[in-house]
Amino acid sequence: MTTTEADQLSPEATADPAADPSAGAAGTDHDHGVHGYHKQKDEHLKRLRRIEGQIRGLQRMVDEDVYCIDILTQVSASTKALQSFALQLLEEHLRHCVADAATKGGDEIEAKVEEATKAIARMMRT
Amino acid sequence: MTTTEADQLSPEATADPAADPSAGAAGTDHDHGVHGYHKQKDEHLKRLRRIEGQIRGLQRMVDEDVYCIDILTQVSASTKALQSFALQLLEEHLRHCVADAATKGGDEIEAKVEEATKAIARMMRT
Amino acid sequence: MTTTEADQLSPEATADPAADPSAGAAGTDHDHGVHGYHKQKDEHLKRLRRIEGQIRGLQRMVDEDVYCIDILTQVSASTKALQSFALQLLEEHLRHCVADAATKGGDEIEAKVEEATKAIARMMRT
Amino acid sequence: MTTTEADQLSPEATADPAADPSAGAAGTDHDHGVHGYHKQKDEHLKRLRRIEGQIRGLQRMVDEDVYCIDILTQVSASTKALQSFALQLLEEHLRHCVADAATKGGDEIEAKVEEATKAIARMMRT
Repeated sequence: MTTTEADQLSPEATADPAADPSAGAAGTDHDHGVHGYHKQKDEHLKRLRRIEGQIRGLQRMVDEDVYCIDILTQVSASTKALQSFALQLLEEHLRHCVADAATKGGDEIEAKVEEATKAIARMMRT
Repeated sequence: MTTTEADQLSPEATADPAADPSAGAAGTDHDHGVHGYHKQKDEHLKRLRRIEGQIRGLQRMVDEDVYCIDILTQVSASTKALQSFALQLLEEHLRHCVADAATKGGDEIEAKVEEATKAIARMMRT
Repeated sequence: MTTTEADQLSPEATADPAADPSAGAAGTDHDHGVHGYHKQKDEHLKRLRRIEGQIRGLQRMVDEDVYCIDILTQVSASTKALQSFALQLLEEHLRHCVADAATKGGDEIEAKVEEATKAIARMMRT
Repeated sequence: MTTTEADQLSPEATADPAADPSAGAAGTDHDHGVHGYHKQKDEHLKRLRRIEGQIRGLQRMVDEDVYCIDILTQVSASTKALQSFALQLLEEHLRHCVADAATKGGDEIEAKVEEATKAIARMMRT
């Protein structure tokens, strides 16, 4: 089913975002956010599907009474995978959204940097 | 489908573990591990399905070009949920497996404590 | 001066804690806590003095306008050292205090495990 | 003694950085890094001295056989303080060094973003 879903996603994932009215609507205030991770979209979806598979694996482990410590090892692997995804997203965000705000000049950079720092703080505290 | 899956799991989850041959087989070396989180099995599966839902939500967000920072917030929520699951599992492990090893006496407690500490270290470093 | 301090600590560190009235008083509710890390006391103090040196090093770096990223690298090293100290302390706590509560039987083990899990949660969220 | 040290630092901390030849020398390759946290220098030094005080407090706790869990609570507080310092430093770095690289144009922004992301990864993994 994951494969079917992946197939269904493919056309959208490669579609031109400029032609997507919902992206355009969302883009009014977060225009650069939309483009920040766009090129890596397929890679991100692949990573997330792999993480989804890990979470299903955890369900099987609990269901099959696997030893607690082995489950904890798998939880750590999933958490690491999520943080690695977050770091890649953040890197693209800094490269595009934050850098664009800096180039434009004005007050936007302050808001973008504060927003990014708060996101990093949330990532560190989880 | 998640609901169907949950329904199908219910009978097993409430079944007597002593009557389950696979649990019995797994139990030879990690007997207390099996029972450590057994009573909370349903709750654990519910938590993990909720986390699976969050990961699917992340895929939708990426697919719909949601703003990076909003995706990062959702990643932090999922990571927090995974760590919270890990902590509950660890608490049950300490209460059952580690405490049982201590009661039995002998060298097993040393190995159990070292193993648990290594699992905690992995959780902290993710 | 650090050495002198260490020398002055030595006699106390090897003294019988049961003969120490303040330890005895504190021992009523936390008796095993006192013994948990007692043997590693010198090693713990050495680690903490090294961390104190790292924090002073950070002050020098800030004072000398060292590049932000290099300071962040040093902060990460200090945080890692603190977490490593915490893990060692926790391991001894599990080995002594938690294991002793399990051996004694009764309700104490529940409280000890809950307390340890809360401490681990605090360590994970920092 | 911490107070005396603070007093001795004050004149330097308020000195004009432009008049400091060592800062000028360090500035050749990391010019914006130097200015990134300069204005907050006093605040940073105050924070770090408070953390140093916490680490000394931890030494006293270990020396006085304080209960393990209470020491772990204090370790978590110190780790949190270090991470909070790191986040402030990072925010200033993004606001100044990264934003300046973006404004300048060219390839430097790529390198700066990669460097910052690696620093964030190190902070998350400690």
